[in-house]
Amino acid sequence: MPKTTRINHIAIVVDDIEAALKFWRDSLGLELSHVEDVPDQESIVAFLSVGNSEIELVKPTSDESGVARYLQKRGPGLHHICLEVDDIEASLNGLKANGVKLINESPLIGTGGKKIAFIHPKSTHGVLVELYELTQDEPEIRLQRARVLADRVIEGGQVMRQAAISFLRGIRSNGDGKK
Amino acid sequence: MPKTTRINHIAIVVDDIEAALKFWRDSLGLELSHVEDVPDQESIVAFLSVGNSEIELVKPTSDESGVARYLQKRGPGLHHICLEVDDIEASLNGLKANGVKLINESPLIGTGGKKIAFIHPKSTHGVLVELYELTQDEPEIRLQRARVLADRVIEGGQVMRQAAISFLRGIRSNGDGKK
Repeated sequence: MPKTTRINHIAIVVDDIEAALKFWRDSLGLELSHVEDVPDQESIVAFLSVGNSEIELVKPTSDESGVARYLQKRGPGLHHICLEVDDIEASLNGLKANGVKLINESPLIGTGGKKIAFIHPKSTHGVLVELYELTQDEPEIRLQRARVLADRVIEGGQVMRQAAISFLRGIRSNGDGKK
Repeated sequence: MPKTTRINHIAIVVDDIEAALKFWRDSLGLELSHVEDVPDQESIVAFLSVGNSEIELVKPTSDESGVARYLQKRGPGLHHICLEVDDIEASLNGLKANGVKLINESPLIGTGGKKIAFIHPKSTHGVLVELYELTQDEPEIRLQRARVLADRVIEGGQVMRQAAISFLRGIRSNGDGKK
């Protein structure tokens, strides 16, 4: 049987990332590991480290996405959990054989070969569950994204989104304790 | 600053533990680590291992508890997350100093010195967060509880609750692959 190895992250939908970081980073003391603007998911996400797992804060950037509608309907709060598996195709095949309803019948392949798939809450007793198979390229991709974001801020006039600045300030203030 | 060391567990409220185990244990393949009948919380809970964290399935046993009302209002699904800390008093003092609204201003002390406290969702952006300080006695307490439950089943006529039998069946079927 394929193995489910750990909780990769817990996703929390929020309406204001900076305000949410005041609790999760500044009051609770979690380390902000990285921030991503994810245009194809119409959201900005911030990841905070907890042991070998993460808390993901998700803020929708449009009113149309699934996450945006969830926020409108239920307010800020827990959105989904992501479990890391060692063989996502084998996991999905096992779930299908058990009659589990899947949102993604086969894995979505992201940048660098990252594989994810969502299980429908109807089969999990109300929880949106993401399965995730880590690839070896993932850490390098994250580093590159952070560099791109840093470059956009450092180059001043080329900054596309005010959000990027405040996030980078957040990352820096987390390092030296200032706000 | 006190450390938040890991995700201890993610709690999911369900209306039928056995049915929920069909997904979380039998289809997803998580190992059922232990089951507890917790009369003072008016609930039965089942813990499944995921790496060094757990998924906790909670079924209310009365209609009056907070978890029961949550289930009636929102249906089955994510209920709270529990983060392990190395010094819960220091964590709570830090949160109070930051104006965070706490459900428990000081830790609740459980059997064997276990310390927990809940943070109000108003301060976390919608998430009920439990803080938990592990004590060295905890593993032994859990083992003893499992033994007590096993004895109640093995002694036959002394079994207090039909639930205990079906849980133990669950634990055994998980071990040898049968249902």
